[in-house]
Amino acid sequence: MNKIITIGREFGSGGRELGRYLAEILGYAYYDREIIAEIAKRTSLSENYIQHIAEQKPVIPFPIHTGRTFWAVIPDYGQSVQQEQHNIIRELAQKSDCVIVGRGADYILRDENPFRIFVYSDMASKISRCKANNSQDYAKGAEMSEKELTKRIEQINKGRADYYEFYTGQKWGDKVNYDICINTANFDLKEIAEALAKIC
Amino acid sequence: MNKIITIGREFGSGGRELGRYLAEILGYAYYDREIIAEIAKRTSLSENYIQHIAEQKPVIPFPIHTGRTFWAVIPDYGQSVQQEQHNIIRELAQKSDCVIVGRGADYILRDENPFRIFVYSDMASKISRCKANNSQDYAKGAEMSEKELTKRIEQINKGRADYYEFYTGQKWGDKVNYDICINTANFDLKEIAEALAKIC
Repeated sequence: MNKIITIGREFGSGGRELGRYLAEILGYAYYDREIIAEIAKRTSLSENYIQHIAEQKPVIPFPIHTGRTFWAVIPDYGQSVQQEQHNIIRELAQKSDCVIVGRGADYILRDENPFRIFVYSDMASKISRCKANNSQDYAKGAEMSEKELTKRIEQINKGRADYYEFYTGQKWGDKVNYDICINTANFDLKEIAEALAKIC
Repeated sequence: MNKIITIGREFGSGGRELGRYLAEILGYAYYDREIIAEIAKRTSLSENYIQHIAEQKPVIPFPIHTGRTFWAVIPDYGQSVQQEQHNIIRELAQKSDCVIVGRGADYILRDENPFRIFVYSDMASKISRCKANNSQDYAKGAEMSEKELTKRIEQINKGRADYYEFYTGQKWGDKVNYDICINTANFDLKEIAEALAKIC
């Protein structure tokens, strides 16, 4: 059986970076957007579009270019995208040792005994990290006011919580669902990755 | 400023052992019952008695040998015992680098920037650990039925949660109050201690 590390993470807490470091140290495959890209290839839909669905409950109304809202059709479609995504996560976990960030992989792969990490931090640290890393991954944080950024972070995390809870029936970020929960506010991510690599 | 590690822990999850290993690896002083012993020396009351108060909210009725219940007098007395205990924790933290298990030390020493660990596990693991380590530290778990032991574990943890919440105003075990939360169900405690020693 392959060694699988899953990372759930609050937006702005550095979970994705931690996952990359960990995969690099251990020589494991690393997946997050790659999963979405794979789905996009199979379904011929745009990655951004699927990214949006993946971060939300599929029942949330979503305007599309035809002018109508998507709520009437998204439940079935969302389910099939999710089903596909879950299948891909299972396939990737079969291929090799890997780190998988997000997408409820801890739950999807629960029978494979993954090492389940959850990464979080307080709002001040999230804001600071988003502003320091002014990339798309961090909502272009430096270009927003603190108030706007706080709202955006809360909104993204609400989407993740809803998605996770909808598909797993578990509470997102509840420590009982993880092997280790890390508050990144006071940590150097590389140092944590080095330490985690010894116990994963 | 000394390096201070605080450990909050669910009863039965191995937090005390983890603390001992960590102190040993790092060469730090280790405190848990020692704090209580120190208080007992100063107040000339029995360690067991103070242990009981320390694990409970002081307002809980407590029968004493005189025949009356203690609820009428315990609030003031409990407060003074706690005040003494908090003073001792501060004194110990001034003396040297140390690991302090329990007693809300993470909150008491919040201005000293402690590394705050919380140790937990699921009930099945707690039961299994209590039964395997049939000592007083583990409620002599092997001598109880699973039902009795579950009840005892819940009771002790309820006492710890009440105590913590009463004195800190924070939720016991809520991950926002800690730097790292460790589910010991699938871990070797020595291995975790080795890894933690690198990031504390």
